[in-house]
Amino acid sequence: MLGTMMDYPLVLSVLLERARRLFPDVEVVSRRMDGTRLRRPYRAIHARATALAAALVRAGMRRGDRVGTLMWNHAEHLEGYFGIPAAGGVLHTLNLRLAADDVAYIINHAGDRFLIVDECLLPLFAQVRARVALERVLVVRHSDAPLPEGLEDYEAFIAPGAAGFVAPALGENDAAGMCYTSGTTGRPKGVVYSHRALVLHSMCLAMADTLGMRNADTVMPIVPMFHVNAWGQPFTAPMVGARLVFPGPAPKPEDLLDLMAEEGVTLASGVPTVWMGMVQALDGQPGRWKLAPGVRAVIGGAAPNEGLLRALQGHGIAVRHGWGLTETTPLAACTHAKHGLGDLAPDSRLALTLKQGLPVPLIEARIVNDDGEAAWDGRTSGELQVRGPWVAAGYYEEPGTGDKWTADGWFATGDIATIDPEGYIQLTDRAKDLIKSGGEWISSVALESALMDHAAVREAAVIAVPHPKWQERPLAAVVLKDGAAATAEQLGAHLASRFAKWWLPDAYVFIDQIPRTSTGKFQKTVLRERYRDWRWG
Amino acid sequence: MLGTMMDYPLVLSVLLERARRLFPDVEVVSRRMDGTRLRRPYRAIHARATALAAALVRAGMRRGDRVGTLMWNHAEHLEGYFGIPAAGGVLHTLNLRLAADDVAYIINHAGDRFLIVDECLLPLFAQVRARVALERVLVVRHSDAPLPEGLEDYEAFIAPGAAGFVAPALGENDAAGMCYTSGTTGRPKGVVYSHRALVLHSMCLAMADTLGMRNADTVMPIVPMFHVNAWGQPFTAPMVGARLVFPGPAPKPEDLLDLMAEEGVTLASGVPTVWMGMVQALDGQPGRWKLAPGVRAVIGGAAPNEGLLRALQGHGIAVRHGWGLTETTPLAACTHAKHGLGDLAPDSRLALTLKQGLPVPLIEARIVNDDGEAAWDGRTSGELQVRGPWVAAGYYEEPGTGDKWTADGWFATGDIATIDPEGYIQLTDRAKDLIKSGGEWISSVALESALMDHAAVREAAVIAVPHPKWQERPLAAVVLKDGAAATAEQLGAHLASRFAKWWLPDAYVFIDQIPRTSTGKFQKTVLRERYRDWRWG
Repeated sequence: MLGTMMDYPLVLSVLLERARRLFPDVEVVSRRMDGTRLRRPYRAIHARATALAAALVRAGMRRGDRVGTLMWNHAEHLEGYFGIPAAGGVLHTLNLRLAADDVAYIINHAGDRFLIVDECLLPLFAQVRARVALERVLVVRHSDAPLPEGLEDYEAFIAPGAAGFVAPALGENDAAGMCYTSGTTGRPKGVVYSHRALVLHSMCLAMADTLGMRNADTVMPIVPMFHVNAWGQPFTAPMVGARLVFPGPAPKPEDLLDLMAEEGVTLASGVPTVWMGMVQALDGQPGRWKLAPGVRAVIGGAAPNEGLLRALQGHGIAVRHGWGLTETTPLAACTHAKHGLGDLAPDSRLALTLKQGLPVPLIEARIVNDDGEAAWDGRTSGELQVRGPWVAAGYYEEPGTGDKWTADGWFATGDIATIDPEGYIQLTDRAKDLIKSGGEWISSVALESALMDHAAVREAAVIAVPHPKWQERPLAAVVLKDGAAATAEQLGAHLASRFAKWWLPDAYVFIDQIPRTSTGKFQKTVLRERYRDWRWG
Repeated sequence: MLGTMMDYPLVLSVLLERARRLFPDVEVVSRRMDGTRLRRPYRAIHARATALAAALVRAGMRRGDRVGTLMWNHAEHLEGYFGIPAAGGVLHTLNLRLAADDVAYIINHAGDRFLIVDECLLPLFAQVRARVALERVLVVRHSDAPLPEGLEDYEAFIAPGAAGFVAPALGENDAAGMCYTSGTTGRPKGVVYSHRALVLHSMCLAMADTLGMRNADTVMPIVPMFHVNAWGQPFTAPMVGARLVFPGPAPKPEDLLDLMAEEGVTLASGVPTVWMGMVQALDGQPGRWKLAPGVRAVIGGAAPNEGLLRALQGHGIAVRHGWGLTETTPLAACTHAKHGLGDLAPDSRLALTLKQGLPVPLIEARIVNDDGEAAWDGRTSGELQVRGPWVAAGYYEEPGTGDKWTADGWFATGDIATIDPEGYIQLTDRAKDLIKSGGEWISSVALESALMDHAAVREAAVIAVPHPKWQERPLAAVVLKDGAAATAEQLGAHLASRFAKWWLPDAYVFIDQIPRTSTGKFQKTVLRERYRDWRWG
C-alpha cells in the first residue's frame, strides 16, 4: 500500500523559485575585483539564472551535460549554481587552486562541454586550454580588455533572456552538480550530486541545531564555491531567503572583515586557516571592525584548535564546528550542546566544540575496526563510516574504488575516530596519518593540536618518519609566530604534560610555512617526502 | 545522467533510531489518568515500539495493513506512531471525539485489522464494536479492572519483546500513516501519509523559521495525536532529541499549565480554543504558574483572534501561527517576520501573526479565482491552492473527489484567501462560509474576528441566513463572557467602525456556546440548521 501523497520531486529550482516568490528584493552582495560591491536581488538572480539555462539549451546543451565553472564566490557563480541544473545540466565546480595539469585532467574526466570562467582566472585557463575540448567558454568579465580569440562574454551569452524557455521536467535523482575530491593522495575523484541530495542537504542546513540558517541571516560563504558547493549554503540561502554576501576574487582577511562589519554578516563559514588569518587581523587592529551581535562562525574542512576557538569567542564570534567530506555533500556532523549538557562550564563546552559533533539528522555514523563495530565509549577508535541520503554511493567513472564502500552499504571515510557515549564524533586521524610506533598508534592530529596551543606556535604538522627500530616515529614541523621563540626542548616539555612519553616527537624542525593543499589543508604528503630520509640522532 | 548518491529511503525508523543512538536518556513524559506522570526515555520508547512491531508481525500483520489507534496523547501512542510503521503497517489514528457511527464508518472504510485503544475509551469502543470487524483489540490499561471479553492487554501483547524481529525493507513511498478529515461537511475522507512525506515534514518542523524544534526544546503537543499526527511533532521530536510532554486523557487548562510550568515546556501547540481556556486560567489565577522563559505557543487548526494573541503575549508566551490541513500533513504555512520586516511596530507584527503566514520551504501556494491565478496584492481573493511533497494527491478509496485537485496538479483547499506582496497568506473564509449578499461577498470570518475583539464577547460565529431580497444576510451568534453584557446595538456599533454598512449583521442571537466539531472548530453547519428559518424583522 502506497501513500496518497503528491509525486513532487525534490529539485533545485524549487529553492530559487521560493526566493523569487517570497524574497525577490533580498540582496546578493558580491565583492568585485576593484573592491566595489555588486548588489543583485534574488529577483534578478532568478531571471539571470533562467536566462543562462535558456542560453545553454540554445547552445545545444543536452540533459546531463557537464558545464564547468572556474570562478570565485560571486553572484554569477550563484547563477550557474541554479541555471545549469535548471536546464538539466550538471554544475561542475572546478578548483582554481589546482595546478593546470589537474584542472585539465578533471575537465577531461568529467567530459565538460562548456565552461564559465572568471576573467581574472584566464591566465590559469590559458595553461589548460590546449589540453581540453570545450565547445563554448563564457567569460565573466571584470574589465574592458579584449577577450582572447574564441572566448565569449557571459553577459552577451545570457542577454537574450529566458523568453520561450521551457524548464525540463527533472527527476530528483538526476545529476545536478559535480565536485572532485581535493586528492591529498591519488588522483581526484568525482562525486555527482543529485537534485534530491542537494535539496535534502539544504533542508538540513536550515535546521535549528545544525547551521540554523534562517531568513533573518546574512550569510557569507568564505569557503569557496568550488569546495563542495561552499558547503551547500548557496542552495540553502535562497530557500530561506537569507541575504548572501560573496567575498569575490582572492579576498584578504581585511576584505572579509570589512564585508562582515559593513554588511552585517551573521553567519560566515570557512576553514580554520581562514579564521586564523581573520583573528590575526582582529588582534592587530583592535576596534577597527564592529561585527554583528551574535555572529556565528562555521568552521569545517579541518579541525580547529582550541586557541582558535578561544580567540574567536574573545572577539564575540560564536563557533559551530561542522564535519563532512566531498562525498557527504558535505555536512555529516556538527557540534551543538545537547539538552542535558547545556549547563557545561565554558571549558567543557569548548572541548565539545573541538569534536566533530553529532551526526546530523538522516546521517548515520559508526566506527569499525578489526573487531567489528566499535562501542561508543569515547576511547575505542576505528574507521568512521557513514550513510545517508546525501552520502555518495560511488565515484564518477572510477572503477576500482569500490573498496571505499562496505558490503553493507556504508561509505568508509578513511578517517579514524572515536564516538563518545553522547554520540559526539571525534576524529583522531586520517588512517594514513597515524604513526605506527612499535606496534602502537600515535595520533599526529592530537600532537599537532596540542602544539598549536603553545603560545609561540602558529602552525604545526606532525608526520611519521621511518625509524629503524620503531618502524615509524613522529617528527614535528613547526611554524613559530612572528617574533616568538621556542626551542624543541620547550615544545617537548609542553607536550609532556599531556601525552605518554612514547608519543612525544623525537625531532622538531622549524619552517616558514606548512605546505597546503588547494583547499587550505595541511599537505602532509609534501612533508613526508621532504623528511623521508631523516636521520634520527 | 544520475547522481552517484546512496539510495537511502526516507523512512520513519531513521528518526527514532537517531533518538536511540544520540538521545537514549531524554524523557518522554506522559500525564496519566490519576494525574501522576510516567517518565519513559527514548531508549525505552524505541525498545517498546520495536516490540510492538514484532508482536504485530507475529499476530499476522502484513505489509500495508491498517492498525487503528483510539487514544489520547501519551507514550504508548508514540510507540504506535513508530512501531506500527516499523512493521510495515499503517498507523491509523481515530478521532475519539467523533460519534460512534463515524468511528465505525472510518474503521470499516480504512479496513483496520487491529486496534489499540485506551481503557478510558472503552465506553466509546463498546458502541463501535459490534459494527466493525477487528481481529485483535489491544487495550492500554489505566486500572486493574477486568477487560471485556475478547480484548487483550497491550502490555501482554508487547511483553515478548523484539528478539528475532527483522525490520522489513520499506520504500519511502510506502504508506506509514492515515488520517481522516474531520468532515465539517460530507463524510470523512482518508489521507494516507507516506514515510517520505512524514520524514520531509519532520525536517521542515526543525527549521529555524518554521517551528524551529530543537534538541533543547521540551515539546508539548496539546493538539491531539489523532488530529493530523499532532501536527507531526511526535515524529520530529525524536529526530532532534527534544523532550516530549504528553497531556494524557482529557486534560483541563489547569492540567496543561501544571505540565508547562513543572516540566519546563518551551514549545506547546494547540487550537485557539485550547489557548483561550489556558489564558482564562492564567488570568484567573495570577502568579500560580511560572512558565519557561521564551516559551513558544504554536497555534493552528483555526485562526486565532487578536485578543488571544495579545493575551498570550501578555503572559510571556510568544506565538507562532501555523496553517495546514489533514491533506497537507499538515504544516503548509507559518508566520515569521521576514528580514526586512524585523523592525515592525508591535501592532504590525501582531497583524502579521494573525495571517496564516508564508508557505514553508517546499510548499508552493497560489490563489485562483474566475479570472485565473490571482496577483499577490493582498486584496484579490480566490481559492487557495497548494502543492508539495507532503500534500495529498488523492483520498483513500474515495472516487468522485478528484475535483479537489486541479488539472495541473494542485490541491484545491476550499479556503478563500489573499496573498500579500510579501507572500503572506491570509484566509478570508472557507468557500462555503462566505455570505453572498446582493451579488457581493461578505466574510463571516472577518466579522467573527472583529466581534471577538469586543471586550464583552467570548466567542462569536457569523453565518449566512437565507434572505428574500439579498439572497443571504449575516446573522451573528454571540457568547458573552461570564458577567459581561452587550446589546446588539453596541456590537453593531463596534463593527460599524471597521466594515462597510452592508457587511454588518442584520441580527444577533446570544447563546451559551458555539457548537464545535470533534476537533474544536466552530461547527457552523449546526448553526445554519438552527437558524435556517430565521424571520428577518
